[in-house]
Amino acid sequence: MRQFMDQDFLLSTDTARRLYYEAAKPLPIIDYHCHINPQDIAQDRKFDNLTQLWLGGDHYKWRVMRAAGVPEEQVTGRADDREKFRAFAKTMPQLIGNPIYHWSHLELQRAFGITRQLALETADDIFDQCREKLKDCSARKFLKQFDVKALCTTDDPADDLKWHEIIAKDQAMEAKVFPAFRPDQSINIDKPGFAAYIKRLSEVCGFAIQCVEDVRKALYQRMDYFEAHGCLCADHGLDYCMYQAPDLKQAQQAFTAAMRGEFPEKSKADAYKTFVTISCAKRYAELDWVMQLHFGCLRNNNKPQFAVLGPDTGYDAVNSRSGVENLAPLLNAFAEHGKLPKMILYSLNPSDNTAIATIMACFQGGGVPGRIQQGSAWWFNDSRPGMRAQLTELAANGVLGRFVGMLTDSRSFLSYTRHEYFRRVLCELIGEWVESGQYPDDRAQLERMVKDLCYYNTREFFGFQV
Amino acid sequence: MRQFMDQDFLLSTDTARRLYYEAAKPLPIIDYHCHINPQDIAQDRKFDNLTQLWLGGDHYKWRVMRAAGVPEEQVTGRADDREKFRAFAKTMPQLIGNPIYHWSHLELQRAFGITRQLALETADDIFDQCREKLKDCSARKFLKQFDVKALCTTDDPADDLKWHEIIAKDQAMEAKVFPAFRPDQSINIDKPGFAAYIKRLSEVCGFAIQCVEDVRKALYQRMDYFEAHGCLCADHGLDYCMYQAPDLKQAQQAFTAAMRGEFPEKSKADAYKTFVTISCAKRYAELDWVMQLHFGCLRNNNKPQFAVLGPDTGYDAVNSRSGVENLAPLLNAFAEHGKLPKMILYSLNPSDNTAIATIMACFQGGGVPGRIQQGSAWWFNDSRPGMRAQLTELAANGVLGRFVGMLTDSRSFLSYTRHEYFRRVLCELIGEWVESGQYPDDRAQLERMVKDLCYYNTREFFGFQV
Amino acid sequence: MRQFMDQDFLLSTDTARRLYYEAAKPLPIIDYHCHINPQDIAQDRKFDNLTQLWLGGDHYKWRVMRAAGVPEEQVTGRADDREKFRAFAKTMPQLIGNPIYHWSHLELQRAFGITRQLALETADDIFDQCREKLKDCSARKFLKQFDVKALCTTDDPADDLKWHEIIAKDQAMEAKVFPAFRPDQSINIDKPGFAAYIKRLSEVCGFAIQCVEDVRKALYQRMDYFEAHGCLCADHGLDYCMYQAPDLKQAQQAFTAAMRGEFPEKSKADAYKTFVTISCAKRYAELDWVMQLHFGCLRNNNKPQFAVLGPDTGYDAVNSRSGVENLAPLLNAFAEHGKLPKMILYSLNPSDNTAIATIMACFQGGGVPGRIQQGSAWWFNDSRPGMRAQLTELAANGVLGRFVGMLTDSRSFLSYTRHEYFRRVLCELIGEWVESGQYPDDRAQLERMVKDLCYYNTREFFGFQV
Repeated sequence: MRQFMDQDFLLSTDTARRLYYEAAKPLPIIDYHCHINPQDIAQDRKFDNLTQLWLGGDHYKWRVMRAAGVPEEQVTGRADDREKFRAFAKTMPQLIGNPIYHWSHLELQRAFGITRQLALETADDIFDQCREKLKDCSARKFLKQFDVKALCTTDDPADDLKWHEIIAKDQAMEAKVFPAFRPDQSINIDKPGFAAYIKRLSEVCGFAIQCVEDVRKALYQRMDYFEAHGCLCADHGLDYCMYQAPDLKQAQQAFTAAMRGEFPEKSKADAYKTFVTISCAKRYAELDWVMQLHFGCLRNNNKPQFAVLGPDTGYDAVNSRSGVENLAPLLNAFAEHGKLPKMILYSLNPSDNTAIATIMACFQGGGVPGRIQQGSAWWFNDSRPGMRAQLTELAANGVLGRFVGMLTDSRSFLSYTRHEYFRRVLCELIGEWVESGQYPDDRAQLERMVKDLCYYNTREFFGFQV
Repeated sequence: MRQFMDQDFLLSTDTARRLYYEAAKPLPIIDYHCHINPQDIAQDRKFDNLTQLWLGGDHYKWRVMRAAGVPEEQVTGRADDREKFRAFAKTMPQLIGNPIYHWSHLELQRAFGITRQLALETADDIFDQCREKLKDCSARKFLKQFDVKALCTTDDPADDLKWHEIIAKDQAMEAKVFPAFRPDQSINIDKPGFAAYIKRLSEVCGFAIQCVEDVRKALYQRMDYFEAHGCLCADHGLDYCMYQAPDLKQAQQAFTAAMRGEFPEKSKADAYKTFVTISCAKRYAELDWVMQLHFGCLRNNNKPQFAVLGPDTGYDAVNSRSGVENLAPLLNAFAEHGKLPKMILYSLNPSDNTAIATIMACFQGGGVPGRIQQGSAWWFNDSRPGMRAQLTELAANGVLGRFVGMLTDSRSFLSYTRHEYFRRVLCELIGEWVESGQYPDDRAQLERMVKDLCYYNTREFFGFQV
Repeated sequence: MRQFMDQDFLLSTDTARRLYYEAAKPLPIIDYHCHINPQDIAQDRKFDNLTQLWLGGDHYKWRVMRAAGVPEEQVTGRADDREKFRAFAKTMPQLIGNPIYHWSHLELQRAFGITRQLALETADDIFDQCREKLKDCSARKFLKQFDVKALCTTDDPADDLKWHEIIAKDQAMEAKVFPAFRPDQSINIDKPGFAAYIKRLSEVCGFAIQCVEDVRKALYQRMDYFEAHGCLCADHGLDYCMYQAPDLKQAQQAFTAAMRGEFPEKSKADAYKTFVTISCAKRYAELDWVMQLHFGCLRNNNKPQFAVLGPDTGYDAVNSRSGVENLAPLLNAFAEHGKLPKMILYSLNPSDNTAIATIMACFQGGGVPGRIQQGSAWWFNDSRPGMRAQLTELAANGVLGRFVGMLTDSRSFLSYTRHEYFRRVLCELIGEWVESGQYPDDRAQLERMVKDLCYYNTREFFGFQV
């Protein structure tokens, strides 16, 4: 019987422990994809209590609270912070097997030194202890504590990157903070708000965007702006991976319709999306940026709740029609009609794992190690079993030694503990392989590999200057 | 080396054993979904031999016998009961890794005290021993032996529930037996026999069903009848989960065509199915019934054999086009156009597990704990690996502590041992989590959770008065 | 800590070791499906160095080299054999968790007696040692060393089987070498080269193929020719499993279009494919051949690289639209409109595993043990986790004891070690089941089963006279 989440948490073999303590644990963090608000860093935001940090915007936690029967009042409603915290604490013991159970306790341990189980009985004590401790905490102190060397936020092309500029000029700032280019609003032509967004982008760019070619021009202009602010990567979030043979005329018809406030036909919308995506990929390749592609998310499924709470409130799910069948032709179009950038591919549907691992192998090459990557287990898959499945699949069909590893994808300064979680899962898995005779117990080789997977592959792949 | 299926079967850790013996094993059974014939209970049916119990209607066993090369004569044909039993016994040792191997031996152990392996060599002895033992057995004695407190049969809305009435009035009857409402024949408009069924339903209801609205009216009337007979839940069995935006006109066209004996167009048939299903869900919510939704089954795949043997004879399979992409819009329609009842969702396709777990999380809420459930591993998935996969997935994306757990879905009085099988698998998995430090070794908390998952969650969720 | 790939590799329990050493290891090999060139056997080909054997045509290895950043020059380009070998050796240590890592080391151990890890540091030594050793090696010596009793190559119906005739007449030849019938070029009507192929087939058959019925006639004629050369099985490779209700008129329209050099409409192309496939299946059943069906492969995804290197160079992937939804109607059509032969089904998409296992159960019967088989984990799935998944799934939904087991599907004489790999994985899994009390520790029964799964089931199912 191992103790609950002690220092050897998940490190089930001697090899796992040795690799974790000697290779993984000492390394700093590069978080190449997160949703931290740069303003919080610039202004070194402070937090009054754990409810603000944990329940202010974390729809993972909201979902399990609802499923446990907590009334909405205590989830996103008017209940006070202590009451909400109690409601979450009461939910916790029921979350056996859920990564939230581990994440939350890791955060309590690492950020607050609390090793007790969070439950209704301990809720008030823990709430008070953390409130006391939070007086000495802030956004920047968290970054320092978790040894974050660099992070990339997620930013709209129309953003002026004001907060990034402030951070960059701040001599006291140790971690490097880069913007990442996320042009979803200019690509998702079938979503409400597209026309308004294009107008906003026109204003930012200083010219009227009147055709598809103008969209491309505007995006390229903003890429230059982001490049000047140190940007190293882009991210495209798609409900499903689309592909239509490039056809400017169809794309243009979709654009014209959407600018009139109409919903374009699906095939024309897909032609537009494909066209703009290929254009982006080409330019990313020229800039040597990494292009991330996220697909397979079904959003805002509960319309009555959407009407009350809006998006990103816990009503998204896996899209079983993720469009993974379009991935190979899309990547081929990058190679044929543009240029193939370095890429990281993520599907929310774990049934796509093998397809992605085998498709990306068809686009490796050009002497770039790990040119196309399968991203670490995303969102709903970001659990121990999900991470093990992604690592196992990637290893079986690719070159695990070149994997760029973990990202938090999080809005929270406490989520850096997920890098620790990933490192433990990784060392656990490698330890199993080594101790069962499936890989040599070559200490130097293993430590080098673990270091690459935890830090150096990311630094090299993106070109972080840290 | 552990002994084959001894008392600690599957209980691989001290924690698993402690939880099983102290929390899981002592609890009675509520079987909220089975296909027991209520007549057998009312008349306290007796069985002459194990072939009647095992091979009379169990298409699981028929399938493996055919795959092992047993001629149809000895599967469903004219061979005598002993010969059929020998043929199955000969198949058994080849079924390593198949749940039938465990189920059959559990049944031999628990119902007949036989611990030997069933094989051709032991077939005659075991056949004779069981025949002797069966003289003292009966339907009700089995229910008593397995400590079944309550069960729900599966009943057509047109059924008069005569046997349920007899059982309910029987003072000697200890277990409670409830009907469950299964309106498939009035919904599956694209299956032969629809028009004839609607006529039968008309007669039972005492008015001519001439339009979609009449179908709804008839079903509501029958729901009231079932409610008066203690019904707590309904079940909808769909080849695939369908969704069409509610459109009474299209639904009506499908109904008119079907009543003329024509096959309606698929989109209109789906409109009809969606319309009636939404209507049902609304009323279930009002009655506070639990609505079960089973989808993803491809039935009667072997037409030459269907012509000889008819349905439910072992020719069904997983539908890779399960329609899970329609699940979110369908549940949303319940929420928008009707009312969202308490639900249990099952797909026969295990690739749908993550999609279901994440979709259902979008419809939790209203302060009802575990309002939408992912059903226990269904049919072909009801094996140790299948149950572990379902439990792991549900835990990772939901609140395992609120799960309503096991059901037999069986026609046999011996299948109550599957509750034991589930409880062992559950304790094994929780034991692994606890002993590897992934969950605290908090004895009281763990025992409470196991008890909830084996009995109390079901009692509370359905509202069983036992 | 177990030693890296020692004699007990993967044999994690006493039971696994006993079964492997006493039942599995001593058995010879029947490789019922490979892509060995029969000319190499007839002429007893020799190899100068390991690069020729390993990197001459093995696109598995090319893919991982590209992913590791090796320039194409050293993959398929002009670099010399030693340089290519070094590039592969450098890639090797990064392949933790990839079956290539195990396969390559198994081949070094068994064929060359080398137990060191292949890495850049050991590359030159190993290259030289193997070159020396290869002086005493040849195609036939490898067959003898690996105790290959029989193998089936893969042959086009138009092939004259010249090399098979030479081998058959060679008294010195110990292993039996049979052709296998692979009519893909006459079925894949939507691929370039169809019309030219049909002309070639016409010439071979001695009559002009002018309609669909002529295609059938030609194929039947060639089946007789193959039968006369000892053929026992056929193989159909499909990008996706298709089905259209048999319609000779539609099929004929597709044929007419394709012979004019046009691409037929998809539905008509599918009608043609379905029609010819049903015709083939009928005749295979009459000849008592085994029909293999491979589907779910997306080929030649990288068009720029295809233009340079052609097919089978490492640019294929899993087809997420594998067409598994057509499998049940296709098999039913065999049963209804023709005859159902013995079959082995393979999908490249592992998400199809459960669907296949449950569909095939619907077509078992006729007193033939294991009439329809789920093929061993194919291509990208042919790893330890992939094989375990296939075995576990097949066991849970079928009769594992009747499985025909392993095939290499390989072009290389070293790949016979994959039979060893499979046998180890199989014994490991059975050992786990037995030692955890899930199956009785009945020594004789277990050894018989393992022998069946490694050798005898194949011999009996195909009717190999060895």
